[in-house]
Amino acid sequence: VSSGRTPRARTSVRRLPEKQVADRAALDRLLDAALVAHVAVVDGTQPFVVPLAFARDRDRLLVHGSTASRTFRALAAGVPSCATVTVVDGLVVARSQFESSMRYRSAMVLGTFSTLHSGEKERALAVLAARLLPGLDGARTPSAKELKATSVLELPLEEWSLKVSGGHPEDDDGDLDRPVWAGTIPLHHTWGEPEPAPDLAPGIDVPPAVATWPEGRA
Amino acid sequence: VSSGRTPRARTSVRRLPEKQVADRAALDRLLDAALVAHVAVVDGTQPFVVPLAFARDRDRLLVHGSTASRTFRALAAGVPSCATVTVVDGLVVARSQFESSMRYRSAMVLGTFSTLHSGEKERALAVLAARLLPGLDGARTPSAKELKATSVLELPLEEWSLKVSGGHPEDDDGDLDRPVWAGTIPLHHTWGEPEPAPDLAPGIDVPPAVATWPEGRA
Repeated sequence: VSSGRTPRARTSVRRLPEKQVADRAALDRLLDAALVAHVAVVDGTQPFVVPLAFARDRDRLLVHGSTASRTFRALAAGVPSCATVTVVDGLVVARSQFESSMRYRSAMVLGTFSTLHSGEKERALAVLAARLLPGLDGARTPSAKELKATSVLELPLEEWSLKVSGGHPEDDDGDLDRPVWAGTIPLHHTWGEPEPAPDLAPGIDVPPAVATWPEGRA
Repeated sequence: VSSGRTPRARTSVRRLPEKQVADRAALDRLLDAALVAHVAVVDGTQPFVVPLAFARDRDRLLVHGSTASRTFRALAAGVPSCATVTVVDGLVVARSQFESSMRYRSAMVLGTFSTLHSGEKERALAVLAARLLPGLDGARTPSAKELKATSVLELPLEEWSLKVSGGHPEDDDGDLDRPVWAGTIPLHHTWGEPEPAPDLAPGIDVPPAVATWPEGRA
């Protein structure tokens, strides 16, 4: 089941359909690796694309932001939206410019966001914290005032498509004899050395959860 | 001049305005570092957000794709669009979940794409190749047939905004005494060891242009 319930045609991949992946586990791997979704909000005929930190929670995407934000107000109003999540994994250098491309994984989720309310909202924020700040359970949970200022929305993972381009250059036979290098240059996304906050109290070491932060996030 | 000619309000940053950057040089640095823009196309009321490899060429963004692609046909028809370019630079771990955030740079460009035709089109494709495959001038340039199958579009850099969040956690005074680590975990985007194509002829070494591929792309 590559693209959820209805209507399939909107999320079917017409160009380069060989790159379409119908594997829900592959979708989840991408969504669990990525930190940011690019979410569309349309105002009249003008679309806006906004980067939002997100987390997958089973069969939905969760995002959070300020209740005062235009984006969150528009999304909460239930306008049709699209959340696209992309990770670039490398450059594919072919013997022709035309066949040169990228290694990437990209998921598109269509649907309508809806607002989570008391109870559900706190649980969703805990999931967001667990996904975006894994292992860091020392951080203070939101106060009543902070909760009130925060909008938490969910987008169901029903209508989606996934494209994965992970291969090598595919040159025309006529180009194979060109005396130029061809191959892939992988792009890695890796965590660097943690930088303590300037106002960190002395004697607090980098916790194991930070030192062993999962690689592969991007 | 942070957001171009008219109307400024659409690209002004209302939330967290302290993160808005009006510096064109900072915009160019982000656009020249990033490989992919997330571009919106609206069909009726439904937006679609599509990741597109892009290049900045002076005061415009260039993208290319198949003339048969729905996205490129819609963009070429001149519908209002938005291209958003985001690089995540790290996770900001505060003493509260509420203040935890990300280091990121994100640019939003509003406008209408237009199609480049003969002459302009070839020059734009050369710019795209130079930006996305720098130093690799051995690759064959497009044939007449390939050119015909390729749509090249430009989006003027007129109406834009830039948000840069590069700092440290900013905890409430009341949270500073919590005995938990706070700081930033940088996210680096680095090129890995080049992988030769399986069908690469023997005796062709990795060229210096690949070995010295510019870091900082993401």
